[in-house]
Amino acid sequence: MQNFDYYNPTHIVFGQDRLAELNTLVPENTKVMVLFGGGSVKRNGVLDKVLASLGEREVVQFGGIEPNPQFTTLMKAAELARTEKVNFLLAVGGGSVMDGTKFVALAAKKENDEHTLLHHGFAPVPMTEALPLACVATLPATGSEMNMGAVITMNDQKYPVMSPLTFPKFSFLDPDFTLSLPKEQIANGVADSFIHVVEQYLTYPVNAKVQDRISEGILKTLIEEGPKTFNDNNDIEARKNFMWSATNALNGLTGAGVPQDWSTHMIGHEMTAMYGIAHGRTLAIILPSLLRERTEQKRAKLLQFAERVWDIAEGSDDQKIALAIDKTEAFFNGLEIVTKLSHYNIDEAGIDTLVNNMEKMGLTALSESGDLTLDIVRKILLAAL
Amino acid sequence: MQNFDYYNPTHIVFGQDRLAELNTLVPENTKVMVLFGGGSVKRNGVLDKVLASLGEREVVQFGGIEPNPQFTTLMKAAELARTEKVNFLLAVGGGSVMDGTKFVALAAKKENDEHTLLHHGFAPVPMTEALPLACVATLPATGSEMNMGAVITMNDQKYPVMSPLTFPKFSFLDPDFTLSLPKEQIANGVADSFIHVVEQYLTYPVNAKVQDRISEGILKTLIEEGPKTFNDNNDIEARKNFMWSATNALNGLTGAGVPQDWSTHMIGHEMTAMYGIAHGRTLAIILPSLLRERTEQKRAKLLQFAERVWDIAEGSDDQKIALAIDKTEAFFNGLEIVTKLSHYNIDEAGIDTLVNNMEKMGLTALSESGDLTLDIVRKILLAAL
Repeated sequence: MQNFDYYNPTHIVFGQDRLAELNTLVPENTKVMVLFGGGSVKRNGVLDKVLASLGEREVVQFGGIEPNPQFTTLMKAAELARTEKVNFLLAVGGGSVMDGTKFVALAAKKENDEHTLLHHGFAPVPMTEALPLACVATLPATGSEMNMGAVITMNDQKYPVMSPLTFPKFSFLDPDFTLSLPKEQIANGVADSFIHVVEQYLTYPVNAKVQDRISEGILKTLIEEGPKTFNDNNDIEARKNFMWSATNALNGLTGAGVPQDWSTHMIGHEMTAMYGIAHGRTLAIILPSLLRERTEQKRAKLLQFAERVWDIAEGSDDQKIALAIDKTEAFFNGLEIVTKLSHYNIDEAGIDTLVNNMEKMGLTALSESGDLTLDIVRKILLAAL
Repeated sequence: MQNFDYYNPTHIVFGQDRLAELNTLVPENTKVMVLFGGGSVKRNGVLDKVLASLGEREVVQFGGIEPNPQFTTLMKAAELARTEKVNFLLAVGGGSVMDGTKFVALAAKKENDEHTLLHHGFAPVPMTEALPLACVATLPATGSEMNMGAVITMNDQKYPVMSPLTFPKFSFLDPDFTLSLPKEQIANGVADSFIHVVEQYLTYPVNAKVQDRISEGILKTLIEEGPKTFNDNNDIEARKNFMWSATNALNGLTGAGVPQDWSTHMIGHEMTAMYGIAHGRTLAIILPSLLRERTEQKRAKLLQFAERVWDIAEGSDDQKIALAIDKTEAFFNGLEIVTKLSHYNIDEAGIDTLVNNMEKMGLTALSESGDLTLDIVRKILLAAL
């Protein structure tokens, strides 16, 4: 096991019918900015419940945070937070709204300074203050409700934005708030959560037994509960397990003390930025192809994945690994996620443009070992045509 | 899955050779009280390293915190913290030192008021301030390094003391600091950690799949790595896995959203208070007998425990459960822990006194359902003679 730091101070409020507790959790005498997306939280009544729970506090609303939240939109929210002298931010929505709110928490303290706020990769943003924020999560997927990360889009490029100042103070996870989600968003969330775990698990062994088993436990739960949630809106128990899996998939626990490989996310972000394909779907296209291409580098963990996650007991090591990757791809397909680029009309020329863009962004040495070059990215994408 | 709150803000600093980071983690310009136990941290050099890492800060030392830390000892430490105007506490030691330091953090803010500080069961102590504290953990066992609980002894009775104010700000977990532990303390720690997980896992099913699998993952890791750590002081990788298992066994994660049964601990605390048997050893005596007695109430989870933790695939359900309990007892025995009361010269009369004491303490309705009466406690103990 490698040395590690683990720190996660977010208070999780999990379960049905708990929103009245907002009133005790949001500090008294604060002016609250409630941030949301395209309006689904208005239509399904969650926003009204949130506003009711905030009681007599002064509230400023900021709606319209788009999927893949845009720098320019969020800078407007930050400006509003400053002029309205807001002192608490409440995200009501999915990953984009939560990510966007984290960014606003920082940007509200730093006027229009793109260079301080972006361009730091996975290193923390060099800031010492942010507005406090909390979340009412409505989409299990990104894990943003219990981590310090966000992904922000500017000029068709995606930028990670990290800061320990942006851990939510608390996050409400109520499965009822996810009931109005379109089916494809459930599917995307299952794929996104699954791949978050995989990118912290399928590297090389470092004898981190607790972390490995937590990862395997989350993956098995997603395999069991993801399709149930996708197929049956009334299966609240499945949905609870899916929600808690998604949160634990990216809260630092599975990644503590182990190597990580975020190649699939890096390639996927480029694909979303260029072609507008939903984040979870880009990952599901890339991952099976990447695992096939990188079988040698990941052999020991792929075998463990085959045996422990997919319960494959028969066959040679190669057969077990191949079957595990096929089963993973079939799992995504079973959620009606197509795992081929051609489905999105992306051809060889499109792959070249994508790879060139990655080169421009400096994403030239990916993987747990930094040995995944752009030539290999091209090969992975060609195999996913 | 039941509704739950999960909150754990302790920053874990895990790994070898990291103690120099104390200097950045303890706030500057603080006067630090360093608390420790019987002096083993002096003999093995850990205390000197801690003092060196604290740099120029003013330091007050308080040694002599005993196993099963005593109210009277800790009140002296609290008095010293007040008169010396200490503003940060650093525990250097095992569970007793960490628990004791948590108590001092509260008691330093409340002069000699037993009734405010004890007698609240598992409810939080009604206080609004405490000194900040942190830990350099030297014994993987109690999980105290990453939770808000302590157990304090007064007049031969053990009292839980809980407060969200006593989460350590940070805890160092360095496997090297555990190398001078006597073998039997490693064994006790493995048993204690194992049973922490069991008491949050072996109840009745509520379809909490992630929590169950995390529990099973920790139990399997303890089964694999506990004996290696016990038998080979040079197996640092096993020790790391044991340490991280012990911490995760009682940091709130496995117990979130599931019923819990702390009967084994309640009976064990009484046994330690009356007969001075080390905590982990009392648990190992009680648990197998309790599980046999409570097979009907715990049937579904015992079967899951047999199949998933002990990999028992053959036999009837009853046979699988019986074998799993036998294997659990053999696991403790393999760590040279005797699981019979007679080994400690406790006879039927001793059991009666113990049960009477529990009655005096009001511990009359234990278990996940509150249906474990003192008659059943007597039966469990008689079967462990």
